[in-house]
Amino acid sequence: MKVVIELHSVIARVLQIIRRSKDPLSKTDIAAESGLSLSAVNDHIERLISDKLIIISEIGNSSGGRKPRLYALNKDAGHVISIELGASSVQFAICDFDCNLKFSDRASIELGQGPDEVLEQIYRRISSLMEMNRISKTSIKGIGIGIPSPVEFISGLPISPPIMPGWDRYPIRDFWAKYFDCPCYVDNDVNIMALGEHAKGLNFEVDNLIYIKIGSGIGAGIISHGQLYRGSNGSAGDIGHIDVGSDVLCWCGNRGCLEAIAGGKALTAKAKELASSGHSSFLMETLKEKNDITLKDIRAAIQQPDPLSVELIRDSGATIGRVIASLVNFFNPSLISIGGSVSEFGDIFLASLRQGVYQRSLPLATRDLRINKSTLGRPAGLIGGAFMTISQLIVNSTDSDTDTVLERKQSHL
Amino acid sequence: MKVVIELHSVIARVLQIIRRSKDPLSKTDIAAESGLSLSAVNDHIERLISDKLIIISEIGNSSGGRKPRLYALNKDAGHVISIELGASSVQFAICDFDCNLKFSDRASIELGQGPDEVLEQIYRRISSLMEMNRISKTSIKGIGIGIPSPVEFISGLPISPPIMPGWDRYPIRDFWAKYFDCPCYVDNDVNIMALGEHAKGLNFEVDNLIYIKIGSGIGAGIISHGQLYRGSNGSAGDIGHIDVGSDVLCWCGNRGCLEAIAGGKALTAKAKELASSGHSSFLMETLKEKNDITLKDIRAAIQQPDPLSVELIRDSGATIGRVIASLVNFFNPSLISIGGSVSEFGDIFLASLRQGVYQRSLPLATRDLRINKSTLGRPAGLIGGAFMTISQLIVNSTDSDTDTVLERKQSHL
Repeated sequence: MKVVIELHSVIARVLQIIRRSKDPLSKTDIAAESGLSLSAVNDHIERLISDKLIIISEIGNSSGGRKPRLYALNKDAGHVISIELGASSVQFAICDFDCNLKFSDRASIELGQGPDEVLEQIYRRISSLMEMNRISKTSIKGIGIGIPSPVEFISGLPISPPIMPGWDRYPIRDFWAKYFDCPCYVDNDVNIMALGEHAKGLNFEVDNLIYIKIGSGIGAGIISHGQLYRGSNGSAGDIGHIDVGSDVLCWCGNRGCLEAIAGGKALTAKAKELASSGHSSFLMETLKEKNDITLKDIRAAIQQPDPLSVELIRDSGATIGRVIASLVNFFNPSLISIGGSVSEFGDIFLASLRQGVYQRSLPLATRDLRINKSTLGRPAGLIGGAFMTISQLIVNSTDSDTDTVLERKQSHL
Repeated sequence: MKVVIELHSVIARVLQIIRRSKDPLSKTDIAAESGLSLSAVNDHIERLISDKLIIISEIGNSSGGRKPRLYALNKDAGHVISIELGASSVQFAICDFDCNLKFSDRASIELGQGPDEVLEQIYRRISSLMEMNRISKTSIKGIGIGIPSPVEFISGLPISPPIMPGWDRYPIRDFWAKYFDCPCYVDNDVNIMALGEHAKGLNFEVDNLIYIKIGSGIGAGIISHGQLYRGSNGSAGDIGHIDVGSDVLCWCGNRGCLEAIAGGKALTAKAKELASSGHSSFLMETLKEKNDITLKDIRAAIQQPDPLSVELIRDSGATIGRVIASLVNFFNPSLISIGGSVSEFGDIFLASLRQGVYQRSLPLATRDLRINKSTLGRPAGLIGGAFMTISQLIVNSTDSDTDTVLERKQSHL
């Protein structure tokens, strides 16, 4: 991690500045933002243009002299494949270099079939998506995968994944190297959602945010100092097992874990109890009819409204809000972005969650705090996977080319 | 914040690389670490030498050709004053550019007397320390102050300080500008302790750490990606009011705040109860004798050992440990560094705290986690104040000199 963040070469920094800007930039803008001399910026721009990584996007306004050229990322520099693995399904997309999802699809999977079988299925689906849309293999410059597991980012290995039996330390990168002649990067699923939200949902407008995914489990992705924060073992954001002081047993062996009380799985289990016991007649009817209760059914119950289902969702929001309050005191972010299927419960859920946060957070820490539903919603992960992949491509390609870059610069001196 | 971190010029980066290195560096080392060309490094080194900010510290080993020169920070480039304000006392020091405390002293203060009176007292004490040691005003290049309050770092203003009546938004920097012709920087006290511990206690060997000060209150300082993390309003690390699920009323108006249960003030209050009720005969004797019980008295009781005092400290450690467990799940640091007067309770306290952490943290998040007493101990704040000040001097001086630096570079092209 340290190497990647601190040692990337100056040309990568220039490209990142251009890429992270909402609007095209002039050389003067880039010099100001990077602290480099105009002549150094000139060299780098020349190189990036010749590598087709940036384009002259338009001619800017002049303050007297010649109108300046403005530079932007070349979104057609190539394609990347972005894959988001879930507990029971996979989403995948072919993206351009500006993280637009050009073609995408999804499929059901069974993680328990193990990595070889599952990845092979995904490869076949992606192959046909590419074929159908005439995307050549050579245009694919990188592959990014988000998985529901802690990940050692530097090696791309899943580490002790609780819901991916058979995947522990499986070399996912090597699998893709069999089929594609480009690098593959693996990250935690909530991390890439946070990245996507930060880069494309929010255009980097906040420097510190916590993205919280409330699905069947609960996890967080952290942006700190404008960068994704993965922690020392890649497990940062694993908030599902924070103690909320209850007796409920969690699958992890502890009692009172947040996700055992307030996650999607806990909600459907509680709804089934309300149905079986006959406390909620609406849920009882649903259970009788479908022999199961899903989050979608609870959403339908809330629409009725079925008061006990509303209470269920309110309690979940309040519990999650109290935990977020602790995180807000500790981390003082400017934004809490809420994603995942439970966030679809809408205003009732979000209002209870906000109430929990404001009740227990310090006034100063919430002074400018916003708590919103994710702007990107569902595609956050795929977009973030593409973003992460292209960031890594930039850092690594320029790292390996350092000699050439230095030679060029020296030849100008 | 963004400006300072992202826009500082290339020469500042070179100086920071030299400064953060434990050993002197050659130009080749610096080029590798910065991604700059050797000729650019050459220019910067020349400039830094002529500005007396670095020195040629030694001649390195040769791998064949001419032996390379090694560069290091010039610790005698000037002095900085570091001040750490506490609830009832102030520490201050005159430091060299390598953050060594050359001369230091402390004094009692009464924060409630208001900023004008208190700062005037401190100024007088520092003046006589300087006079006594023949430190000239012109050698003072910067002043750094840590205060027990959230701070808006960019302006140096205390924001809604709970234990500093009359200090809200007081312009501390302007006060010092009356007496010294150099910049002044203000930061939260626990932030500068974390900085000191990270820079000088640990030589930057970890990238992600939480420094926890357990004094009369409880606060944390966060190092993320190798940099101090202040949060969006400067209130990051304010963990004293995290809910631990109890009925005890805190001064903040909420119930069950961590510091109301486990902080130093809570401990002495509980010890007094044990004394008055006669449950602990040892504490009862102490109270009768001194008409008060301090943390020092509790420490003496533990030495006896007085079982109820031991239990008190164990409970405090366990409660703090459970909160740290949540932070470890969220932040996955490689180190928790414990400072402040309560940390002086030694192994009994630390063992209970560790137990609380390990019981509730995810195994992956604690795989490489160390939980240690601060290596620097008490001087962490003064050292960190000096470190913070010199970092800011480097960033700001080179920013304002950017034109000159650029001109120089261009004249070489």
